[in-house]
Amino acid sequence: MEANRFLTLLQQRQSVRGYTGKPVEVEKLTRCLEAARIAPSACNAQPWKFIVVDNPELKAQVAASTSGGVLPMNHFTRQAPVLVVIVRESANFTSKIGSAIKDKPYTLMDIGIVALQFCLQATAEGLGTCIMGWFNEKKVKELLHIPKSKRAELIITLGYPSSEEIRPKIRKNLHEICSYNRY
Amino acid sequence: MEANRFLTLLQQRQSVRGYTGKPVEVEKLTRCLEAARIAPSACNAQPWKFIVVDNPELKAQVAASTSGGVLPMNHFTRQAPVLVVIVRESANFTSKIGSAIKDKPYTLMDIGIVALQFCLQATAEGLGTCIMGWFNEKKVKELLHIPKSKRAELIITLGYPSSEEIRPKIRKNLHEICSYNRY
Repeated sequence: MEANRFLTLLQQRQSVRGYTGKPVEVEKLTRCLEAARIAPSACNAQPWKFIVVDNPELKAQVAASTSGGVLPMNHFTRQAPVLVVIVRESANFTSKIGSAIKDKPYTLMDIGIVALQFCLQATAEGLGTCIMGWFNEKKVKELLHIPKSKRAELIITLGYPSSEEIRPKIRKNLHEICSYNRY
Repeated sequence: MEANRFLTLLQQRQSVRGYTGKPVEVEKLTRCLEAARIAPSACNAQPWKFIVVDNPELKAQVAASTSGGVLPMNHFTRQAPVLVVIVRESANFTSKIGSAIKDKPYTLMDIGIVALQFCLQATAEGLGTCIMGWFNEKKVKELLHIPKSKRAELIITLGYPSSEEIRPKIRKNLHEICSYNRY
């Protein structure tokens, strides 16, 4: 793949907070899930489960769990035709001991990685996503029968964006975040 | 971008554990860093710094920190012409309070995301990478003058792969990791 074309895709991925009512085609959703399935993880533990929420009544209840609290209401979660909840699972033995010895929760980095693979594939499909880590986790776990011992880490909205505008990204300059051979 | 073409890129990204001696072109490295720079993060906190290690003596010392312990020796880290160390920085205020209230270390998921953006761009450039979370962090922090209060979370190798083989990915089946409307 042409390198500049890929960088353009990364620039096109943005948090989409407005969706048309158009449903997501099954084959597109399947490719997004496939992109997530083949994501890398520490010691190949694959410590994740995805719950696709597309039942309208249930989806409305899960969407309601993303509103309220100290952050602004997330009304767009009701518009999105699909929500995907990412549950963090236990790591395998190798990843667990590595994580314990090095005091690094590898599985959390793995969750970030798998969420991004899903969202980038969605962008390539012409779909919009928004990754949310702020929601009423207890409520979501009840609604979806997620075992109490597990963590529902992220909810991703998926659907056709209501606007084609690609907003400029507000980011630190490279010289603020990058140095050579020393911090 | 054509969706299947992007999925192919995701399939091409793999942990590369053998490198030719060919140096990485500055413009390719720059685009990989740009891909990382524009990565999404919780509340746009961008809680990361990248240290590019390309000084041969220093690189050999950092590479040595990835060998030993309970995991096999990582000899390929000495072959790679560039190592990139990702340091986790403090989040901004919004991300911090969200993280505290929800008991979710968002910055760790952010580190996974930013590492993947770097590695996927590298794949698009024809370069190979390997993300490593297992190394002597104390030693790396000393070598690169990273403040004691910070965490060096990941080291990424970057260079031209010594083999063009794309290995089949060993992953769980989709039905093992995905369900609809309930766990």
